[in-house]
Amino acid sequence: MSLDIPDVVIERLPQYLRSLRALKNRNIALVSSADLGIESGVTPAQIRKDLSYFGKFGKQGQGYNVKALTDDLTRILGLDQSWPVILAGVGRLGKAILTYPDFTPEGFFIVSAFDSDPVIVGTDVAEITIRPVEQINEYIKENNIRIAILAVPGESASDLIDQLVQSGIRAILNYAPITPNVPDNVQIQNIDPVHSLQTMTFHLSDITLNTNS
Amino acid sequence: MSLDIPDVVIERLPQYLRSLRALKNRNIALVSSADLGIESGVTPAQIRKDLSYFGKFGKQGQGYNVKALTDDLTRILGLDQSWPVILAGVGRLGKAILTYPDFTPEGFFIVSAFDSDPVIVGTDVAEITIRPVEQINEYIKENNIRIAILAVPGESASDLIDQLVQSGIRAILNYAPITPNVPDNVQIQNIDPVHSLQTMTFHLSDITLNTNS
Repeated sequence: MSLDIPDVVIERLPQYLRSLRALKNRNIALVSSADLGIESGVTPAQIRKDLSYFGKFGKQGQGYNVKALTDDLTRILGLDQSWPVILAGVGRLGKAILTYPDFTPEGFFIVSAFDSDPVIVGTDVAEITIRPVEQINEYIKENNIRIAILAVPGESASDLIDQLVQSGIRAILNYAPITPNVPDNVQIQNIDPVHSLQTMTFHLSDITLNTNS
Repeated sequence: MSLDIPDVVIERLPQYLRSLRALKNRNIALVSSADLGIESGVTPAQIRKDLSYFGKFGKQGQGYNVKALTDDLTRILGLDQSWPVILAGVGRLGKAILTYPDFTPEGFFIVSAFDSDPVIVGTDVAEITIRPVEQINEYIKENNIRIAILAVPGESASDLIDQLVQSGIRAILNYAPITPNVPDNVQIQNIDPVHSLQTMTFHLSDITLNTNS
């Protein structure tokens, strides 16, 4: 069933989960789709439609039980289990990822980190000893790792992604400035602030043009 | 005209630009939409359709002139000018943004950074002296800043975004873990690795379920 669920729907679920947790923190036990809409910035109709993919939630005229829906979405998203993650690339960005406390949320923990620079290999960052990148495939296989964070330069990213996928990685959070093609059974999310900035200036230029004309 | 261009088209332009620059670095002068498709991971038909929004590019049977198309896309995206950017929040993440050399690409430069912590205010990071956040609105207005990077915690983000928008900010790169609503004339791009990780585990749980059943 789940293979028929559109990606855009799945991408909104963490947003609902975040809103539900905020409501729970304010001791709200029941929430209407209208109020969940205000909290999450999605229309009530869209929320009802998105949730309907996963079964029947909420009671007519009563709204959703905040705790029950939180638990269900946590389970649906696979966040009721613990996911070991490896990090490839421990330059400035990789170091920030290892040490930034908000980065690794409940359910995820970075178990090992790899780099190609002999100066970095063997050093400790946030209690993790950096290993040589040559050991990455063996480590993935031996420890059944499915999730990798990639914080390497663009030029080394493509080859490394191929290796990771061959070793069993099925989800990649990619900070390298490339938009790689991966097999259908591999998830990839590109975190690309440069790309995001460049998308926005299109609109700003537009504003400037309108102002001058 | 440009207001009718779908956002998804605009979001692919930086990708084409990146591919064209890679081709230029390999001294390739002309490229077919088929080869640009291989480089960028977009189908040739989609590339031709996307570019047709902006005029007539390329010659039948000859392909695109790499340099000319690079220049045109650079101009269309507003990257032929220099954009001053301010940073709000100089915690661990903000510091990494200030010091990470790949972060600030051509055309963007961080001119000032702000924080609410008196311990951080007044210190220098990457040759920028951190100012108190109370001065941010004045700074934006006086210096005509249009772009802000937000690297503050979730709880302080909403109020700060309202202030930035009122002071004249029109594009926000948001690292705070919220999905804020902004007016139609303001661009916002959320960089949210936690959200991205949570989206991917949905599919991994799925894989696990299939394996066990």
